[in-house]
Amino acid sequence: MPLPSPSAPPDVEIMTIGDELLYGQVVDTNSAFMGQELAKIGLRVRQISSVSDRADEIVAALDQARQRARVVLITGGLGPTKDDLTKHVLARYFGAELVLHEPTLAHVTEIFRRFNRPMLDVNRQQALVPANSEVLFNAVGTAPGMWFEDAGTVFVSMPGVPFEMKKLMTDAVLPRLRERFRLAPIEHVVVMTVGLGESFLAEKIVDWEDALPPNVKLAYLPSLGAVRLRLTGADDGRPDLRGRMLALLPALRERIGSYIFAEEETTLEAAIGRLLLARHLTLATAESCTGGLVAHRITGVPGSSAYFRGSVVAYHNDIKISELSVPAETLATSGAVSEATVRAMAEGARQRLGAAVAVATSGIAGPGGGTPDKPVGTICIAVADAQGTVSKQFSFNRGRELNITYTAQAVLALLWQRLMGPGFVQ
Amino acid sequence: MPLPSPSAPPDVEIMTIGDELLYGQVVDTNSAFMGQELAKIGLRVRQISSVSDRADEIVAALDQARQRARVVLITGGLGPTKDDLTKHVLARYFGAELVLHEPTLAHVTEIFRRFNRPMLDVNRQQALVPANSEVLFNAVGTAPGMWFEDAGTVFVSMPGVPFEMKKLMTDAVLPRLRERFRLAPIEHVVVMTVGLGESFLAEKIVDWEDALPPNVKLAYLPSLGAVRLRLTGADDGRPDLRGRMLALLPALRERIGSYIFAEEETTLEAAIGRLLLARHLTLATAESCTGGLVAHRITGVPGSSAYFRGSVVAYHNDIKISELSVPAETLATSGAVSEATVRAMAEGARQRLGAAVAVATSGIAGPGGGTPDKPVGTICIAVADAQGTVSKQFSFNRGRELNITYTAQAVLALLWQRLMGPGFVQ
Repeated sequence: MPLPSPSAPPDVEIMTIGDELLYGQVVDTNSAFMGQELAKIGLRVRQISSVSDRADEIVAALDQARQRARVVLITGGLGPTKDDLTKHVLARYFGAELVLHEPTLAHVTEIFRRFNRPMLDVNRQQALVPANSEVLFNAVGTAPGMWFEDAGTVFVSMPGVPFEMKKLMTDAVLPRLRERFRLAPIEHVVVMTVGLGESFLAEKIVDWEDALPPNVKLAYLPSLGAVRLRLTGADDGRPDLRGRMLALLPALRERIGSYIFAEEETTLEAAIGRLLLARHLTLATAESCTGGLVAHRITGVPGSSAYFRGSVVAYHNDIKISELSVPAETLATSGAVSEATVRAMAEGARQRLGAAVAVATSGIAGPGGGTPDKPVGTICIAVADAQGTVSKQFSFNRGRELNITYTAQAVLALLWQRLMGPGFVQ
Repeated sequence: MPLPSPSAPPDVEIMTIGDELLYGQVVDTNSAFMGQELAKIGLRVRQISSVSDRADEIVAALDQARQRARVVLITGGLGPTKDDLTKHVLARYFGAELVLHEPTLAHVTEIFRRFNRPMLDVNRQQALVPANSEVLFNAVGTAPGMWFEDAGTVFVSMPGVPFEMKKLMTDAVLPRLRERFRLAPIEHVVVMTVGLGESFLAEKIVDWEDALPPNVKLAYLPSLGAVRLRLTGADDGRPDLRGRMLALLPALRERIGSYIFAEEETTLEAAIGRLLLARHLTLATAESCTGGLVAHRITGVPGSSAYFRGSVVAYHNDIKISELSVPAETLATSGAVSEATVRAMAEGARQRLGAAVAVATSGIAGPGGGTPDKPVGTICIAVADAQGTVSKQFSFNRGRELNITYTAQAVLALLWQRLMGPGFVQ
């Protein structure tokens, strides 16, 4: 069923400017962020073009972009140095003078005052903007965003610094695009899952997906053993779109509830942290092959010091014995990479580090260290709590870096399941 | 002085194909790799264009790319599913039939045999190639690369899977481009430095840089507290270009020798590992604010188990006392974030984990936990060895994630300096 819409939404072109992109010195992550955010408000990116700092090449790219799209979002080339040409090129392209924008000058002056640094003439020039542009205030940097309209096409220039661009997009550009093109309201509901691959997940919810209302679409967004399910709801003229979308979730939970770790955008480690906090539980890790990555992910969450006790990275077997109380006999009999050893590591960490719950990893990340019996990619993980200990063995072998990454993800997934399991007691 | 060259080298356009790039579900890292490798052989990327999986949009992008560049490198859209159109579009674009390429079929069949998986018709179709293309063997995947020449322009199609593209670029595309366009020989010498910012580094070597021969250019490639110096030498008709470039290094070492950790592309942790191995030293870490990241970086190096003992991530102060033997009095008097505490942590880790050298970190990563006295971003690091202990205090405040990242880098830099210091004894 086609949905009523004031007019077809415009295509968007993303233009990123800077020699450093063409030389490969910088990976363009801005475009992916913009693409995601634009998709959320129902706008399609037609093309992404990365061009040099040369004026003639920027102009040629602008000419072509406006043929393809009615919105051109430009990042980069707004710094204070002489290879930052974007503003001057845009002023000439639209036949406008550069004029002083007083609020921006005041903002830049204040930033330099606060950091107690001398303000140079090049810094003052950041407050010059093409006379025909509408200035978008950049609260977190010195180069303002600029919005132009020319013959029905919108051009927006933003700094290339990712966090400045993100703030401008979120606070100014996306809301303005919605308003300018009177985009139909769109709602998003995100469900985060872990522990089941995309195709298995799809199989379990095929009937639910088939029964979705025609104005609600489902996207599977997998990454590293977790799958994000994103429902996008288009306006159907009826009230409370969001409420009606949320009403779809109980039936989803019935089918895959034990794999859902959040019903909003978040990380597995943040969801685990919230659960630990709510239950007044503390956590420790004992890591061999992951070498500290599990602890690093857990402590990446602001406020994790409230529930994270610490970790023992026991790379050498001596440390497994001395710091985690793994019996030497277990190591001798079962080997360092075994369910018996990770269970002892988890239990040792729990006791030694004084935590309610502890996780442990041990494995052969590679490229060396494999045996016929335990080839590279053999991984053991365990979770210990007051009720007992659970463990699992896997076989990955995706190369050292990915073996480590997947092991950390697997042990966090096992921890999540354990925390949510029906039999869980502190 | 302009250098003799058989003809001006051609500009290159990179075209990445796939809706997932435009939706932002995947960050395009392929283009940065290609840009770097092309720069190394003296080719300039004129533009990077990311386009959708729609045939008409791919054709439009091809038409425009050939206006800008004489080499068009295309990635993506070569998979076996129905949205992978690149091969069909290219065949039509060049007016060629798809024909079976027997060596590719044999290769694909062998891959499926090896993994013991059933081969479907869509997999067999991977061996179909446009009749006018030259097939570039893909040793690590099922979709071959394809090389086309059309009216003086070279088009190369490669899979979008990064490691397949990288292998094809290195083994086939770059050597062929060098040969096809008779590019002048180019040599690269890389010097890795840590501990000094780009501008300070530049100041220290300004006389050396000014005295470089005209056919040798220097690039500063900074990332996260380390600066890579890359010398690019163009053929000047005289023999042994590489040898003459290497002869420039002693004078560089005289100026910044203590900041150089390698004279090849490598990581700081790998260089540290090599040094520890050579000196038969072992290493341990004691981490608070870095939460395991230092250990994670160290254990990311293959073979690190030969010198890395382990780590104690002492997030809670209890653990600093019980597992690292930090005196309770030190914590009470100086606080957890203090040089006194990190020194005790490093010394405790060295002793408890039985390592020759130990590093320690403690800091307020934020966003919470700051005080007027010790604001967010206050970081202390230490290195302890048989000779004694050194420590430093910093003030970062770049947000939690970067504070953690910079702290890990700073402690590895201090470790490097300590290992290289004139007074070092085991």
